[in-house]
Amino acid sequence: MPEFFNVLAPAVALHTLLDCLRTRLEAETVPTSAALGRVTAIAVLAPENLPAFPRSTMDGYAVRANDTFGASESLPAYLEVVGEVPMGRAPTMTLTVGQAAVAYTGGMLPDGADAVVMVENTQAIDATCIEIFRPVAPGENVVQVGEDVRIGDVIVPAGCLLRPQDIGGLVSLGITQVEVSQRPRVAIVSTGDEIVSPDTTPAPGQVRDINTYTVAALVQQAGGVPVSLGIVQDDYAAQRRAAQAGLAQADVLIFSAGSSVSSRDMTVQVLNSLGVPGVLVHGIAHRPGKPTIVALIDGKPAFGLPGNPVSAMIVFGILVRPTLYALSGCSQPPQPTLVSARLTKNIPSVTGREDHVQVRLSCADGTWHAEPVFGKSNLIYTLIRAAGVVVVPMDKGGLYAGEEVPVQIYD
Amino acid sequence: MPEFFNVLAPAVALHTLLDCLRTRLEAETVPTSAALGRVTAIAVLAPENLPAFPRSTMDGYAVRANDTFGASESLPAYLEVVGEVPMGRAPTMTLTVGQAAVAYTGGMLPDGADAVVMVENTQAIDATCIEIFRPVAPGENVVQVGEDVRIGDVIVPAGCLLRPQDIGGLVSLGITQVEVSQRPRVAIVSTGDEIVSPDTTPAPGQVRDINTYTVAALVQQAGGVPVSLGIVQDDYAAQRRAAQAGLAQADVLIFSAGSSVSSRDMTVQVLNSLGVPGVLVHGIAHRPGKPTIVALIDGKPAFGLPGNPVSAMIVFGILVRPTLYALSGCSQPPQPTLVSARLTKNIPSVTGREDHVQVRLSCADGTWHAEPVFGKSNLIYTLIRAAGVVVVPMDKGGLYAGEEVPVQIYD
Repeated sequence: MPEFFNVLAPAVALHTLLDCLRTRLEAETVPTSAALGRVTAIAVLAPENLPAFPRSTMDGYAVRANDTFGASESLPAYLEVVGEVPMGRAPTMTLTVGQAAVAYTGGMLPDGADAVVMVENTQAIDATCIEIFRPVAPGENVVQVGEDVRIGDVIVPAGCLLRPQDIGGLVSLGITQVEVSQRPRVAIVSTGDEIVSPDTTPAPGQVRDINTYTVAALVQQAGGVPVSLGIVQDDYAAQRRAAQAGLAQADVLIFSAGSSVSSRDMTVQVLNSLGVPGVLVHGIAHRPGKPTIVALIDGKPAFGLPGNPVSAMIVFGILVRPTLYALSGCSQPPQPTLVSARLTKNIPSVTGREDHVQVRLSCADGTWHAEPVFGKSNLIYTLIRAAGVVVVPMDKGGLYAGEEVPVQIYD
Repeated sequence: MPEFFNVLAPAVALHTLLDCLRTRLEAETVPTSAALGRVTAIAVLAPENLPAFPRSTMDGYAVRANDTFGASESLPAYLEVVGEVPMGRAPTMTLTVGQAAVAYTGGMLPDGADAVVMVENTQAIDATCIEIFRPVAPGENVVQVGEDVRIGDVIVPAGCLLRPQDIGGLVSLGITQVEVSQRPRVAIVSTGDEIVSPDTTPAPGQVRDINTYTVAALVQQAGGVPVSLGIVQDDYAAQRRAAQAGLAQADVLIFSAGSSVSSRDMTVQVLNSLGVPGVLVHGIAHRPGKPTIVALIDGKPAFGLPGNPVSAMIVFGILVRPTLYALSGCSQPPQPTLVSARLTKNIPSVTGREDHVQVRLSCADGTWHAEPVFGKSNLIYTLIRAAGVVVVPMDKGGLYAGEEVPVQIYD
């Protein structure tokens, strides 16, 4: 007799896990230059002011703003040029009334100067005298000490996914090492008597392993380290050994296939045998991906993903990816790219279930059109040929042709 | 006397380069399992049908659809169960009229069977007899040979950026090696007498190198390999040597700073001295980033990015990233994430120039609001604190508060 699922909404399933997840990944110190895409373990404070000295933002002349007031093309101000501020060195002069110094973009202002006149608004009379055609206000074309960031400011909070500009901000302050969460290690077990390695020729009835490779790629995209444990037969003892090995060497365990309710599906028993609290969720109100298992085993999240490669990838995005970011303490994980498009056909669904429907995109008259790709959900090439998915929310019985809907782009 | 720029629109500047770029990166063979984010060098064809045999998509019974026609709960069809198809093996039986075989999801159909009845729509009478409550059509709950992909089909075209599902599609057909473009190697030279390494304490007038690190991170994000050549002083011979070294060991050369028109700015002369045609563009109609150089040196693209770290990052996105994808032959580079938001303030601009204006995002009443971050463009922390940018197109003199605009999210 088949058992029936008691399904949970995908968001409820996720929060059932996250609410009892106390584990955080340990921290490690890495060179800032190698920290792209890593998540900060602690907040980083500015150890000094940036800039550390007043800097010119233009090529021109450092001046006392007062001396330029009222200057115009018909009545220029005349200033004495007392020298040049070389790049990378502190100026040696101090400006007094009526004096100017040649300044370059990024250079330091001499004492006495409080503004910079752009070279375009000046005319050299001779080697030591210039005309100025426009007045400058105090502070004009100058970055003040600490204007970019002040000593003691939080420059990158904890749980921040480091982007190129964050790397730049850190090195600008001399922070060449940064404390980040270790990458989550994710053990992947592919189960099924019919599954063989991609480098073999399947006999009739056999198929090549897909999920080990798609899940590993998804783990990489989410900043994790995939640990493939290979293919395991539909045998309780063998699966239990693989699960134990996975939990011993990784932070997260993923079983693919065996997550349904038939006699071949033993993931629930395997996971429940290994620690507490064990299986938290069996079945989500989602298509595709209903036969999904979410467990917590002595502090480590474990998932039973459907064997169907398309379902496995979609459920990964709904449940596993957010869990990996949560383990890193990442507060704002990257979001999928969305494109607004007009549906070309009705998408039927049922209330009480969230659907992910693959769509093709085409552009006509400046409008994106999304054509639902119906058909059997276990065809990996439907996913390859589709541009993205449209989500039919739990509370809707379907979406109408002509509706403007957000399409999540696959990447 | 200052020289003045003759600026080109950013898109024109890019196409000026791409139109005369004949170079493509060489191909290399990598394991499919390590090919995430790589770009295919040639089209990949399916070497076989997928699936290779008719597969059940359900747990249930393989049947001859004919035998179920007219079945209902009140008048079930009765079938004889002649065996079970074990997973991973070819069935040994052939179904004749009135016969069924136990079938599992993903299992092979026996000869004679043309459909599968879901187990939920059956009732076992005894070990060899079942009742069927619903008819199935021929082909129902079955994936036919070649239904996912047919032998000879193009499964991944040339120039395709490989995603997790593409990896899955390749291994499903036993393609464990794939021909991809080599990663573009990008030499980075940071110039300026005032620039010191991030691991030193700057003297007054000096600042730490930022661009080497932000540009390297951007190169990595675009699938390239950064080759840092360090910091070079404002000295023609030294810069020429660095540029030569960069061109010798990389596919693309990036100079940061020295791209303007003052006496310190010698990138144009350096690039023009090294090969033909040399500098193609000097100055783009863009804020920030006007002082930008685009060159082609004996087939290799070279860029002079502004020294200002914010400008350098933005110009990288406009010109360098598309060039890296073009070198790989990638036809559809990843697009930035867009969020539609309402502007909280006017953004003034001028027609004939494209502006990138940084914005903060906040959400109120289910609507995103974008607050422009004005201020000096050379502050790296404005970029860190902003969520993304709004583009003011060339043909607009500005954008109005209250307008709904697309915001490109930084990632």
